Amino acid sequence: MTARLEDPTVTAPTLDTDPVFAVHRGGKVEVISSVPLRGREDLSLAYTPGVARVCTAIAADPGLAYDYTWKSHAVAVVTDGTAVLGLGDIGPLAALPVMEGKALLFKHFGGVNAVPICLDVTDLHDLVDTIARLAPAFGGINLEDISAPRCFEVERLLQERLDIPVFHDDQHGTAIVVLAALRNAARLLGRPLSDLRVVCSGAGAAGIAVSRMLLQAGVGDLAIADTRGIVHPGRTDLNPAKLAFAGESNWGALTGSFVEALEGADVLIGLSGGTIPREAVASMAKDSIVFAMANPVPEVLPAVAHAAGARVVATGRSDFPNQINNVLAFPGVFQGALRVRASRITEGMKFAAAEALAAVVGDDLSEELVIPSVFDPRVAPAVAEAVALAARAGGVARC
Amino acid sequence: MTARLEDPTVTAPTLDTDPVFAVHRGGKVEVISSVPLRGREDLSLAYTPGVARVCTAIAADPGLAYDYTWKSHAVAVVTDGTAVLGLGDIGPLAALPVMEGKALLFKHFGGVNAVPICLDVTDLHDLVDTIARLAPAFGGINLEDISAPRCFEVERLLQERLDIPVFHDDQHGTAIVVLAALRNAARLLGRPLSDLRVVCSGAGAAGIAVSRMLLQAGVGDLAIADTRGIVHPGRTDLNPAKLAFAGESNWGALTGSFVEALEGADVLIGLSGGTIPREAVASMAKDSIVFAMANPVPEVLPAVAHAAGARVVATGRSDFPNQINNVLAFPGVFQGALRVRASRITEGMKFAAAEALAAVVGDDLSEELVIPSVFDPRVAPAVAEAVALAARAGGVARC
Repeated sequence: MTARLEDPTVTAPTLDTDPVFAVHRGGKVEVISSVPLRGREDLSLAYTPGVARVCTAIAADPGLAYDYTWKSHAVAVVTDGTAVLGLGDIGPLAALPVMEGKALLFKHFGGVNAVPICLDVTDLHDLVDTIARLAPAFGGINLEDISAPRCFEVERLLQERLDIPVFHDDQHGTAIVVLAALRNAARLLGRPLSDLRVVCSGAGAAGIAVSRMLLQAGVGDLAIADTRGIVHPGRTDLNPAKLAFAGESNWGALTGSFVEALEGADVLIGLSGGTIPREAVASMAKDSIVFAMANPVPEVLPAVAHAAGARVVATGRSDFPNQINNVLAFPGVFQGALRVRASRITEGMKFAAAEALAAVVGDDLSEELVIPSVFDPRVAPAVAEAVALAARAGGVARC
Repeated sequence: MTARLEDPTVTAPTLDTDPVFAVHRGGKVEVISSVPLRGREDLSLAYTPGVARVCTAIAADPGLAYDYTWKSHAVAVVTDGTAVLGLGDIGPLAALPVMEGKALLFKHFGGVNAVPICLDVTDLHDLVDTIARLAPAFGGINLEDISAPRCFEVERLLQERLDIPVFHDDQHGTAIVVLAALRNAARLLGRPLSDLRVVCSGAGAAGIAVSRMLLQAGVGDLAIADTRGIVHPGRTDLNPAKLAFAGESNWGALTGSFVEALEGADVLIGLSGGTIPREAVASMAKDSIVFAMANPVPEVLPAVAHAAGARVVATGRSDFPNQINNVLAFPGVFQGALRVRASRITEGMKFAAAEALAAVVGDDLSEELVIPSVFDPRVAPAVAEAVALAARAGGVARC
């Protein structure tokens, strides 16, 4: 989940005095030359007439684009502005600051050149067509802040059409980081994943993707809730994505409210906003695990969750221990995928990323450290290496 | 005209030893952060949670995107790969090295962030739709290497739909530089433009745009030729773009071949490739002006043209005097347009660019210097300033 909303406790500042606006003035990324241009000789090598030889070579052998263009180091960060942070459908232009932010994180943490692309189109098939058409110059597509359930179909249709990775970060980036944190939490508690019953609040893009990945990883059971309660096949108000997921989960056949489902559960995954009462956390099994990722206000504050019996608590915030943040995943995932010129991101690559991310914690594992800091320099290289190896093992690598 | 073909006199080198390929390895541009990211505090300002405040502000007032995103400094360099250099329809992927080269020139000479966008779409209306949809994140669209006559309609339809400049550089960049060079050549010879009869070889995007601009600038007469001879309203084999232009030019009602039309003409504009015989140049009026811009081999070499009586000779090559190169125009044109947040590039802005470019030569004017060097640092600032002023005068500036 990219959602990191502004802190409502801060009075709205004016544009002139808010340091956020000062940082944003003129934009946050730029395109620079990576080759010298000192005079005519350089110009004739990097541009005309020399460049024609490179064009001709690529026309004859398209694979050479990975060697002689930025394709091997470039991704498009694409949104239609329909689900930006927690702000909703604010449109493509207003989404641009987030895409620029993502681009700067891609470069800083992953060494990947990322281009903010904000598309003024909402029809699902037009959106897919547009993204597919702009794909040639990129080695990967990072989908961002596209509303559910459209995002599932957008990603699926694009990956069918393109031979480069298409990765909806709100889904899979979040899922990778949550799985890594849960693996470490389970290790800390000495419990296998198969022992754990999970309840997830939030059935949007992130909620469904996280839940699906946790089930694939082997959690004992998992139920997911939207604002109307637990998702189960008996409900008649579910969109196709939720209905499909209802058939893949909730073996305990829970119905009713999210709070009712929490009773005796081992793991709470909060991806919905809202508030979870202390009593509900207290009703969970002993030594529970609480990932309350709503921003800026977690569904339950760490101190409250601990007081209610939770052993491990993670949030999306940087000022509490165990920050679950997508930036732990996407830079390394794309760095690894680009390194081997992958044609897609397989399930195996995502699981490898989660394991590598979890492993960075190593012997430092504690209740306050089930996931590395976003500034831990070991993270992206470890994730990239694991993703590259998994791509080769999965047969989707070109080199 | 971007066309600068490889020198056919050089034996095709291998990828390993050709310095052009060494320069291109891994691409020629990168996206970097322009704000610091030293720790959690920076992250909270440039990304979440702070960024949400900027998104909210832009959603409420879209004009703020020019202040708080890179829109005010960013253009998309867009191609469909249908007319790349002189190589023809080699497709979007093989066009990428040229777009990257253009992007590095945009930054180096104009301080503009340019993103290479290579579109896998050829239907005219699909191409227009796609470009219009990706426009929000950019302050301008530089169209590049799109085949004629489609390019005319693509540009027109896009400019109707968008409130940012749409500029087909192969047309207007070339026209600006040619007009600047012709103004200076005429000044050197002490002749008004209205005195000059021009013949242009080449009726593609550049040929028609250059010819139209020269006529608007007031040349006495101008005829244009394609491979079948002089374009005139009596021909039945003309595409709509050429037919329209036939009605706007050639007041002398010339028919027949390009070489026949040259007899007694004052100015030769070569934008077609091919060879123009020395005798044809010799048949021109006294003190003729020859711009032979085919690359890498000009339609007539400078020494030959001079021997045949030409006073001023320009080519597209950097190793002869008077290099006519689009890089003299587009960086300054977009820098100026972006500075005032222009909604389009007007005719007035193009003429202002040409005059400013011509004026840089100043008192250094000579037969060997009718156009500045591409590395003259005065060029882009002068062009940008003139374009910005003309945008304000033309009522298309937002600030």
